[in-house]
Amino acid sequence: MNFSSKLIEEAVQAFASLPGIGKKTALRLVLHLTQQPVEHTEQFAEAILKMRKGIKECERCHNISDQQVCAICMDQQRDHTTICVVESIRDIMAIESTGQYRGLYHVLGGVISPIEGIGPSELNIDSLADRIEKGTVKEIIMAISPTIEGDTTIFYIAKKLKNTAASISTIARGISFGGELEYADELTLGRSIATRMPYKKD
Amino acid sequence: MNFSSKLIEEAVQAFASLPGIGKKTALRLVLHLTQQPVEHTEQFAEAILKMRKGIKECERCHNISDQQVCAICMDQQRDHTTICVVESIRDIMAIESTGQYRGLYHVLGGVISPIEGIGPSELNIDSLADRIEKGTVKEIIMAISPTIEGDTTIFYIAKKLKNTAASISTIARGISFGGELEYADELTLGRSIATRMPYKKD
Repeated sequence: MNFSSKLIEEAVQAFASLPGIGKKTALRLVLHLTQQPVEHTEQFAEAILKMRKGIKECERCHNISDQQVCAICMDQQRDHTTICVVESIRDIMAIESTGQYRGLYHVLGGVISPIEGIGPSELNIDSLADRIEKGTVKEIIMAISPTIEGDTTIFYIAKKLKNTAASISTIARGISFGGELEYADELTLGRSIATRMPYKKD
Repeated sequence: MNFSSKLIEEAVQAFASLPGIGKKTALRLVLHLTQQPVEHTEQFAEAILKMRKGIKECERCHNISDQQVCAICMDQQRDHTTICVVESIRDIMAIESTGQYRGLYHVLGGVISPIEGIGPSELNIDSLADRIEKGTVKEIIMAISPTIEGDTTIFYIAKKLKNTAASISTIARGISFGGELEYADELTLGRSIATRMPYKKD
C-alpha cells in the first residue's frame, strides 16, 4: 500500500504491530483518527500511556493490578483457602465471567515448554509453592490448557507440592456444552469416557 | 466485564471507541501492551500523536498530506489534465492500489444527503469548480458510490460545471468481476444491460 504520507505510514505500522490488526484495519483506524478532533487522539494516547505506566503485577498472584496487591487477593469476601492456577491473566477474566468461582488465583505466566525454551524457573511456580507452604490453602485447582505442555506443567507442580497438605484437582475435560460427539477428537472423546461421571437415577 | 482495574478499564474504553473494535478485542490489545516493555506503548502513542498533530489537508485536492500540497498533486509525472472526484481519502487509496489511474484527485468529503443534512456547501465542490475554471483540466472522472445520494451529487456537480470545457465521465457500473448474474440485484443488472458494451468480434 502506498500511503503518500510518512506520518500515516508510521501510525499504520504502530497499529499493525498489535495482534490481530492487519494493515487494512490499521489504516481504517488511522483515517478514523484523522477525522476526529486532535483532542480525541490525545485522550486515546493518554489512556493507554497511563495504563501502561501505572499497571502493576499483584505481588501475591501475579494478576495485573492498580495496586501492589490486586482487588481479588484483597477481597475478604472471597474464599482464601482455594487457589486456581492459570496460565495467563486472560484466563482469570474468562473464569471470573462464569461467576462460578469465588476463590483466589495464581498466574503462572505460561506453561513448561522445552521447545520454546520455557522451563519451570521462567514461570511463577516458586511463588505458588511459597503461598501453599503458609498452610492456609486447602485446595489447588489446576485450570491449565489440556495440552502436552499443560499436563507436563501440572505434573511438575504436583510433584513439587506433594509434601503439602493442600489437595490438587484439575478442571473437568470432556465434550463441550452443545458439542456433538461425532465432531469431537478421539483424545477428548476417549478421555471423557474414561473419566465418566455417575448419573443420579432419582 | 469486570476488569478489577480502573487503568485497564479506561484503556479498553479508549480502544473500544475506535470503529470495528469491540470490548473483547480492546481487552486483548490492552493485555498485549501490558506484556510488552513500556517503551513499546510509548512509541505507539507517539506515532499516532505525531500523525494526528502533523497531518494536514492538501490545499488543492483535500487528500491527507504531510505538507501543504500532497504528494500526488506535487508529482509532475502524473497527468494533471484529469481529475478523479471521490467521496473520501479511502477511495483514493483504493483507486491507487489498482495502478490503473495516473491523474489527480479531488476529495468531496461525502455526498449530498438532505436526510443527513449534508448540502453542497458542506462538500468541497467550490474548490473543485475553482480548479476546473483554471482551464488545464480536460476530463473529470466521477468515482462516486452508485447510490441515490451519489447520483444526486454527480448531477449537482455536472450542472455547476456545465459551462466549463472539461468533459465529465462516471466510472462503469455493472456486474462485479467474478460476480454471478443470478445474485446481482435488479437495479445493477438492469443498468448493466442498458449500458451494454460493444464486443469486438476479431
